[in-house]
Amino acid sequence: MSDDKLTPRSVDFSEWYNQLVLRAELADYAPVRGCMVVRPYGWALWENIQQALDRRFKETGHVNAAFPLFIPMSFLEKEKEHVEGFSPELAVVTHGGGEKLEEPLVVRPTSETIIGYMYSKWVQSYRDLPILINQWGNVVRWEMRTRLFLRTLEFFWQEGHTAHATEQEAIEETLRMLDVYEDFAINDAAVPVIKGLKSQTEKFAGAVMSTTIEAMMQDTRALQSGTSHFLGQNFAKAFDIKFLDEKNTLQYAWTTSWGLSTRFIGAIIMTHGDDQGLILPPKLAPIQVVIIPILKSDIDATPVMETVRRVEAELKAAGLRVKVDDRTEVTPGFKFNDWELRGVPVRIEIGPKDLEKGTAALARRDKPGKEGKSLVPQAGLVEVVKALLNDIHASLLARATAFRDSHIFDPKDYAELTEAVQNGWAYSYWCESAECEAKVKEDTKATTRCIPLNQEEGKGKCIVCGKEAKRKVYFARAY
Amino acid sequence: MSDDKLTPRSVDFSEWYNQLVLRAELADYAPVRGCMVVRPYGWALWENIQQALDRRFKETGHVNAAFPLFIPMSFLEKEKEHVEGFSPELAVVTHGGGEKLEEPLVVRPTSETIIGYMYSKWVQSYRDLPILINQWGNVVRWEMRTRLFLRTLEFFWQEGHTAHATEQEAIEETLRMLDVYEDFAINDAAVPVIKGLKSQTEKFAGAVMSTTIEAMMQDTRALQSGTSHFLGQNFAKAFDIKFLDEKNTLQYAWTTSWGLSTRFIGAIIMTHGDDQGLILPPKLAPIQVVIIPILKSDIDATPVMETVRRVEAELKAAGLRVKVDDRTEVTPGFKFNDWELRGVPVRIEIGPKDLEKGTAALARRDKPGKEGKSLVPQAGLVEVVKALLNDIHASLLARATAFRDSHIFDPKDYAELTEAVQNGWAYSYWCESAECEAKVKEDTKATTRCIPLNQEEGKGKCIVCGKEAKRKVYFARAY
Repeated sequence: MSDDKLTPRSVDFSEWYNQLVLRAELADYAPVRGCMVVRPYGWALWENIQQALDRRFKETGHVNAAFPLFIPMSFLEKEKEHVEGFSPELAVVTHGGGEKLEEPLVVRPTSETIIGYMYSKWVQSYRDLPILINQWGNVVRWEMRTRLFLRTLEFFWQEGHTAHATEQEAIEETLRMLDVYEDFAINDAAVPVIKGLKSQTEKFAGAVMSTTIEAMMQDTRALQSGTSHFLGQNFAKAFDIKFLDEKNTLQYAWTTSWGLSTRFIGAIIMTHGDDQGLILPPKLAPIQVVIIPILKSDIDATPVMETVRRVEAELKAAGLRVKVDDRTEVTPGFKFNDWELRGVPVRIEIGPKDLEKGTAALARRDKPGKEGKSLVPQAGLVEVVKALLNDIHASLLARATAFRDSHIFDPKDYAELTEAVQNGWAYSYWCESAECEAKVKEDTKATTRCIPLNQEEGKGKCIVCGKEAKRKVYFARAY
Repeated sequence: MSDDKLTPRSVDFSEWYNQLVLRAELADYAPVRGCMVVRPYGWALWENIQQALDRRFKETGHVNAAFPLFIPMSFLEKEKEHVEGFSPELAVVTHGGGEKLEEPLVVRPTSETIIGYMYSKWVQSYRDLPILINQWGNVVRWEMRTRLFLRTLEFFWQEGHTAHATEQEAIEETLRMLDVYEDFAINDAAVPVIKGLKSQTEKFAGAVMSTTIEAMMQDTRALQSGTSHFLGQNFAKAFDIKFLDEKNTLQYAWTTSWGLSTRFIGAIIMTHGDDQGLILPPKLAPIQVVIIPILKSDIDATPVMETVRRVEAELKAAGLRVKVDDRTEVTPGFKFNDWELRGVPVRIEIGPKDLEKGTAALARRDKPGKEGKSLVPQAGLVEVVKALLNDIHASLLARATAFRDSHIFDPKDYAELTEAVQNGWAYSYWCESAECEAKVKEDTKATTRCIPLNQEEGKGKCIVCGKEAKRKVYFARAY
């Protein structure tokens, strides 16, 4: 880590992001093009994301399993749209054990095909349904332009794959898991998201309907942060997932898939971070509280360290994730900067004066300088810190929501739309034709992000062609 | 699942194992040669193994991270023994994104090389050491003969990789992690293991010293259940992991690696299972207690189900993993067999008579028939069940230890050794020459399993050549 300041967001947002990921030791570049190493601090954040999601998956009746990394090439070819979508991005194993393989194996870019094959073996009767399985793992997509967390050749994610007896049940599942993602994003990551439908152009290759949660980053670009797909009977037909229903009729199952990846770490960084570094949402932060003893070389460290350790023990006993920075080779000021860079939500400083007065200095990461500092009694500190963490969560969420809402525009005409998407999102009526979507992309680089669910059906004119339109869509430049 | 009985262990142990893995729905064959699907019940067992180990890793100061799946072929070639050991087993990616790669990428068979490369970037000073990182993930070794869990092309594991400033620290780490594996095996899996050194022939490709925990299966074969390697400066030199020590001298680091895989599930199955199915150790069992309501079609189910749900709630509140089997389409007898097959440690039966008497019937999986059954009061059931689970753990461990110890022989001469390894292990003096080791393997298929640590140095004659020998070794046929 370096003492140099980060490039400010206003100067070069992209450079700020790259520097921050490296300096906060979230991830590093691997010696394989486009791949990343997720370093311990980044992985601890991912583990907390995993736990927050896994708990929700289990509460909604899902179980975890593991399917193979390798998929026979012929499997991908069984679903036409799927293979068209993924074939440009495949990593292919052609040799194993020193011999050329008869059939090349694809390193999974996603697992609908191989899981579909297994479900066809496991499902015979309606009693075998629903199957509600999730998998935590790695996948590979051969991307040309890569960014740490946002787009890497290998990434880490969960992919849920479910099979149902009826269309309605599968659609309900698709929307239920989108709700789970929204709940996680808002209540654990303090990342406000908009739920909606993907356009036909933007949907998952092989899906009937794709849904998404979309978040706005501080440069106003959209980040697709999680997706949930209703696959209809497409994969059931490709892989022969059939069951006898209660009337003894053979039916194809209805399937869904849904995924959220390490990309979400990018969403957290770019939603909350500032020019000093990360600001991690308290519920997911690997370290929620850092305690820094304020020591001087001419005084005995023992009494301060005793108090620091007692406070540490009290906070840990309350279930908080706490670290004491007891390094002696660096100054407290260096430590302040270091933990600010790493986005620890709360800092506690304890020095000799605090021992006399029974106090501790509290600094909240989300409010820099004096505004975020307070002197509080050591007695009752645990409750104060817990409340502060809750307040930081609420404050991060409110700030990000306000930022987003102030950057969503309602352009009057196409000219205004092309302006709007340079500094925010445009929320406009759209006729849902691929032509109009393509024109916007061509003219502005903005794509349709989502058609919000549950919007009242209205009557308007397509912002592009002026034809009649029923629903509004978000247009935005996106990651 | 089928009503057919399993092939008994005495008839065909190998067939018993294969049937059991499939019927208990731990795993299934994947449509890719040699790969497996770990089904939800098997993955839940693995998740419990992961938690039991991960807790111990973190208690001993380790953190998790994630390194890339792909390794440039040239990396493997930097450590001579390492590439010789692994090159016959590699899966190779030659094409990505539709193009032939300039340098082929290997799907990691283990990660010493790429992690070594990253450590060389991260380590400059003695202050950067030790690095204590573990990774949970998948690896691929192109095996010819595969068995579910025991040997598959892709398997799941953890691999710890540490770097230290001194040789002694690295050796201590190697042995510390072996102790962690032993502690886990004995205290969580009820699998007794013998800790020891691997011979030079059997050691990890690239290690200076390999250590192992070895377990005896019920067919008396040995299963290597976890290994911890002292790598000396071999990988540090190959990847240039250097640091400035406190005297400002440039030194190579000392590294270790240690791993335990889904193979351990095979150890659990073959240590504890019986002809009725799995017997899962209580601390790792996905379901510790199954409750079966005893209902008849001519009586009202409500009062029984109310009691069942109350008991379920009480057990869950005590932190136990409980399932109520409320299926109505199968009989209680079918359910008994089903959960016995799946190895649930404790079964509770509650029927109308129990409601009158305030009782519940308890059956412990490790003792079949009447011996394992008791009628207990519903009041205080939680404590009784907890004690029973502890007792089952102790009883499984004692039984496996007694079995193992009664199958370890001390042959008087080479002829006796060749006999001994047909029905057990031979524990004999060995001169530590590769020739004698090879002769035993050639004659009996038995290999050296380990030279136990902490054995008193003795004086004996090599069981093979008769030359002087200082230490005893276990010879056994192995998985």
